[in-house]
Amino acid sequence: MTDMTETTPGWLSPEDLESARARMPILYVDAVPVRVDDKGVVTRVGLLLRIGSDGLVSRALVSGRVLHHERVRDALMRHLEKDLGPVALPHVPASPQPFTIAEYFPTPGVTPYHDPRQHAVSLAYVVPVAGDCRPRQDALDLVWFTPEEAVSPGVQQEMTGGQGTLLKQALAFAGRLV
Amino acid sequence: MTDMTETTPGWLSPEDLESARARMPILYVDAVPVRVDDKGVVTRVGLLLRIGSDGLVSRALVSGRVLHHERVRDALMRHLEKDLGPVALPHVPASPQPFTIAEYFPTPGVTPYHDPRQHAVSLAYVVPVAGDCRPRQDALDLVWFTPEEAVSPGVQQEMTGGQGTLLKQALAFAGRLV
Amino acid sequence: MTDMTETTPGWLSPEDLESARARMPILYVDAVPVRVDDKGVVTRVGLLLRIGSDGLVSRALVSGRVLHHERVRDALMRHLEKDLGPVALPHVPASPQPFTIAEYFPTPGVTPYHDPRQHAVSLAYVVPVAGDCRPRQDALDLVWFTPEEAVSPGVQQEMTGGQGTLLKQALAFAGRLV
Amino acid sequence: MTDMTETTPGWLSPEDLESARARMPILYVDAVPVRVDDKGVVTRVGLLLRIGSDGLVSRALVSGRVLHHERVRDALMRHLEKDLGPVALPHVPASPQPFTIAEYFPTPGVTPYHDPRQHAVSLAYVVPVAGDCRPRQDALDLVWFTPEEAVSPGVQQEMTGGQGTLLKQALAFAGRLV
Repeated sequence: MTDMTETTPGWLSPEDLESARARMPILYVDAVPVRVDDKGVVTRVGLLLRIGSDGLVSRALVSGRVLHHERVRDALMRHLEKDLGPVALPHVPASPQPFTIAEYFPTPGVTPYHDPRQHAVSLAYVVPVAGDCRPRQDALDLVWFTPEEAVSPGVQQEMTGGQGTLLKQALAFAGRLV
Repeated sequence: MTDMTETTPGWLSPEDLESARARMPILYVDAVPVRVDDKGVVTRVGLLLRIGSDGLVSRALVSGRVLHHERVRDALMRHLEKDLGPVALPHVPASPQPFTIAEYFPTPGVTPYHDPRQHAVSLAYVVPVAGDCRPRQDALDLVWFTPEEAVSPGVQQEMTGGQGTLLKQALAFAGRLV
Repeated sequence: MTDMTETTPGWLSPEDLESARARMPILYVDAVPVRVDDKGVVTRVGLLLRIGSDGLVSRALVSGRVLHHERVRDALMRHLEKDLGPVALPHVPASPQPFTIAEYFPTPGVTPYHDPRQHAVSLAYVVPVAGDCRPRQDALDLVWFTPEEAVSPGVQQEMTGGQGTLLKQALAFAGRLV
Repeated sequence: MTDMTETTPGWLSPEDLESARARMPILYVDAVPVRVDDKGVVTRVGLLLRIGSDGLVSRALVSGRVLHHERVRDALMRHLEKDLGPVALPHVPASPQPFTIAEYFPTPGVTPYHDPRQHAVSLAYVVPVAGDCRPRQDALDLVWFTPEEAVSPGVQQEMTGGQGTLLKQALAFAGRLV
């Protein structure tokens, strides 16, 4: 952490502060909930079902910000509990190494990932879930798909911001891309 | 990117803005510059030599922030060029997957990494460097160490904030931890 | 290496020896040759073009056995030089960790990978290649494809034994699956 | 799998067959059993305790061969059950990607790993174990160590063939190297 010139106190002038959120990448986590068999093979992928204000159906991964002074694995657990309920029993991996990073840019096309609101960089993990999932918050449902279904055009088209690509990367990492 | 409640416009009140920097983890990259032989085996690790305002010698990895609207690999290249000069010829890995993440907390002991100024989460990469390195900025020199030397108590004690541990993790990833 | 009962001298009787090759998985390496830009982004994937004895065109990764007393990275270099010629300048990754393993089974359907001749387990690597490629041996040509072309049905159908899937996994690992 | 010249039928003459085992690398798996907390943090590492024919104590990872027509994750489960008993409840990772490979050479010094009997290449995994461990076979006991204890000189000296190094690599991968 030797980057003194960029991080000395006062690097943000008062007027700069107002655009602080716009000027820093926001740290996120993405979790791909999966069911595994007794040998660890991924058999299903869980996607959240949402209805937008426009009435459109969308499917999404578990995703959200990492807060100040929060460990990445605590953020993962918090978002998994928020989206899957308190008895989902997620098994966050022993290694903090994400299987990939997803760089969501406000400008489309810079990377496969896009978020019109902000520049977010997400650490992505495959998380086996052993318990009972009860979606909360704004999600209507959690639906389990086979790997074949998850990469089908129908499901892929219902995912936004590049999360369909991220899902395929997760399946490739798990040796289950078809 | 479904975390609407936390990221809707206006989540930062004016008074909140002043503490924005303190309230969000800052995204960093750490690069471990290495020399490799013609088979790709890591033979040397490069560490920057610095003299602090207190006169103390410290050794450091290439490290720095990711800027808004900057890709992680562009940030890596920028910091490598800043610290190693324009003809270092770094080979940033083809995969964006970091070998680990280093969570620098302002509170010591939460993780092995510590930064008193801020909560920073760093994506860490091993970067083979083929060219001529000419340290710039505040670094006095770049010194190449064998893996054995890099993990020796003498060198480890000159590294701060947990970067000695991160260096050992890089060597473990490269199959060169001794 | 504590598996004494399976590996004590004499575990193979003379008659067993004849079927030794059939009874052990054979260790392979698969290399996905890629071109990268100056930031390390994969821009092209190289596939070998072959004409089978049946006149059919097939496209293949660089692939082959690991020999006794040969390091995995030496096997990678040997097969890369055999297939791409002596001035291809491959950059074998600094880490020995493969991006995945491909388990080629003689029985189709056990895994996505199939080899009718044998049970082979392959360690798979993405290898940036900087030099001039001159295919040798039984390959007619090496053709560079964009990631988009490489995953197109036309190219995928010309790949056999599951190597089309392995190629998609390599692109996913490199953040270039489309 | 294009390596036709090396794998056509008949590549082993009868006299060659007798040395077949000596001439091929043997595929192994190494598993590092760990206890994790409810966030996935590794809190303990399990090592098997053995007494050699010379009366010397040694500590070992779960390790063994992959058999013909056996998937790598089936081999992992078989060796884990063999060494830890039937109710250990191991959670084999969802991804087949090993955290590293360990190349055990019969000649010391080629790599950090050594096996005087053979050239073995091992795929290494960190495996969280949730159940009750009851060592069987030739192991006297399974002892759980903290990461600090596991890398201490006392424990490291009781590990042979480079498994002490492999254990340190596993802890580095899990972000728990101290």
